[in-house]
Amino acid sequence: MDSIYSYIEIMGAFTFSISGALTAIKMRFDGFGIAIVAFVTAIGGGTIRDLILNKQVFWMEDISFVYAILLGTIIAIIFRKKQKHIYRPLMLFDAIGLGLFTIIGVQIGISQGLEMVNCVLIGTMTGTFGGVIRDILVNQIPVIFRKEIYATISLVGGAIYYALSLTELPYLWVKLIPILLIISFRFIVLKLNWSLPSIYSKEE
Amino acid sequence: MDSIYSYIEIMGAFTFSISGALTAIKMRFDGFGIAIVAFVTAIGGGTIRDLILNKQVFWMEDISFVYAILLGTIIAIIFRKKQKHIYRPLMLFDAIGLGLFTIIGVQIGISQGLEMVNCVLIGTMTGTFGGVIRDILVNQIPVIFRKEIYATISLVGGAIYYALSLTELPYLWVKLIPILLIISFRFIVLKLNWSLPSIYSKEE
Amino acid sequence: MDSIYSYIEIMGAFTFSISGALTAIKMRFDGFGIAIVAFVTAIGGGTIRDLILNKQVFWMEDISFVYAILLGTIIAIIFRKKQKHIYRPLMLFDAIGLGLFTIIGVQIGISQGLEMVNCVLIGTMTGTFGGVIRDILVNQIPVIFRKEIYATISLVGGAIYYALSLTELPYLWVKLIPILLIISFRFIVLKLNWSLPSIYSKEE
Repeated sequence: MDSIYSYIEIMGAFTFSISGALTAIKMRFDGFGIAIVAFVTAIGGGTIRDLILNKQVFWMEDISFVYAILLGTIIAIIFRKKQKHIYRPLMLFDAIGLGLFTIIGVQIGISQGLEMVNCVLIGTMTGTFGGVIRDILVNQIPVIFRKEIYATISLVGGAIYYALSLTELPYLWVKLIPILLIISFRFIVLKLNWSLPSIYSKEE
Repeated sequence: MDSIYSYIEIMGAFTFSISGALTAIKMRFDGFGIAIVAFVTAIGGGTIRDLILNKQVFWMEDISFVYAILLGTIIAIIFRKKQKHIYRPLMLFDAIGLGLFTIIGVQIGISQGLEMVNCVLIGTMTGTFGGVIRDILVNQIPVIFRKEIYATISLVGGAIYYALSLTELPYLWVKLIPILLIISFRFIVLKLNWSLPSIYSKEE
Repeated sequence: MDSIYSYIEIMGAFTFSISGALTAIKMRFDGFGIAIVAFVTAIGGGTIRDLILNKQVFWMEDISFVYAILLGTIIAIIFRKKQKHIYRPLMLFDAIGLGLFTIIGVQIGISQGLEMVNCVLIGTMTGTFGGVIRDILVNQIPVIFRKEIYATISLVGGAIYYALSLTELPYLWVKLIPILLIISFRFIVLKLNWSLPSIYSKEE
């Protein structure tokens, strides 16, 4: 279980580093600026989680995270020209990172014996705060607050994972189902341009 | 004393969540975005304090904080239309939160045996950093840096609380006096449009 | 060694507080806003480092830091008019702070027995994140991402310090050489307007 756990977290760091690097490329930062945004996007959510839970920060324990992030940065730089628009791959890698990191966050909450609400909150933080810091760094309002549904998906996916973790399902499925649900739902939302029902009336 | 303490901190989280939610409503965020800004505004200052003091983060210990913040968010959403302008209630709840959180911060500093200067600094951080993070999230220059006196009030109120805590006054008053002073002074400042004496000469 | 260590760190806080104060003056913040930006710039990088390494936050241990920062703020306010443009002294004090804090960060990493890559990363964070937070506070894209080489210098200087610390050189030189290299190289870069080789082709 530990190896699956750490495999998922490294994958999450890798995909989020690509999303961070692509955002920085869109802003035309230089090579090093791209690496920093990639790094902070990849470790931001998990670092805040570990600080709050008073745990050793995850990327200090295992040097593979730094290499995964460097790899993601280089891949983003090399392949940026294969795509007419950076938007699509950015959304793809961001969605995968969101799924992976949300589930890791909830799992760590469970392993620390937190209450259900806090487990899901910690999962949502882990999944979304790296992207929030990324957007703050490039001086934009975080994607999480924009029209499309984003954090809601992380929250719902995290709650589903929490529920599944109480069942007898093999734990590969317990993890895979909510991760795939988060990724798919994020894509459906983008495709159909869904947003939460507006709280504002027309006159407002 | 513990119960007064925790009552004040929950009230602070509640009022700051309203101020956060109203700011997000002003920016026309969706329901979930409002909840996140409310949450971060309410817990931001205290979380940074607890991280710096290496304490268990306050809102993880007691699930009531999450409910108080949710309640504040819902109230802000429901009552937003009762007000022509969001500005006044935003300032009101922000001022109350500032008073409550400053005093809690100083008190925690005292209970950790910190030096006086650090107690007051920690109080000011607790009182103001939630609002700083709120303003960064909505991509504005923090209110703390704007013309009106803001952090100064927190600092002075915190110092008064520190001084009173050395006296024989019953501790309800030790707390109430500086809290009410902070709230009143913030309102006087807003009403009279006071600002700190300018350090800039006319030619500058 | 401890005294040199803490002398360097206090000097770093002092120079960074001047850089923070000058940035705030450029934005025409009031006196207290200037002090807050100075404070956060001076302690930001080291605080994040200490939180990540689960150490006591450095400026809580020794009240001299607070006084050094206050002194820096006052000096910046008094001498701001001696300069036609704030740009030059801002760059000077920022470069000195970058050198001092990078070396302190790497040294703390070494003393905690971290791997080489993490030591250098922690050094770069210590040196650069105060400035990143400063720029976020005044709602600008961090200088670290702008065209000129900045974080690269911190990284290279940190690596040189790491290498020198393995040699037999007296430790005054082990520290002085990379600090002076970082400051000089930062100035050469600014003078010659160097930037990293662009990753973008002309058509992009």
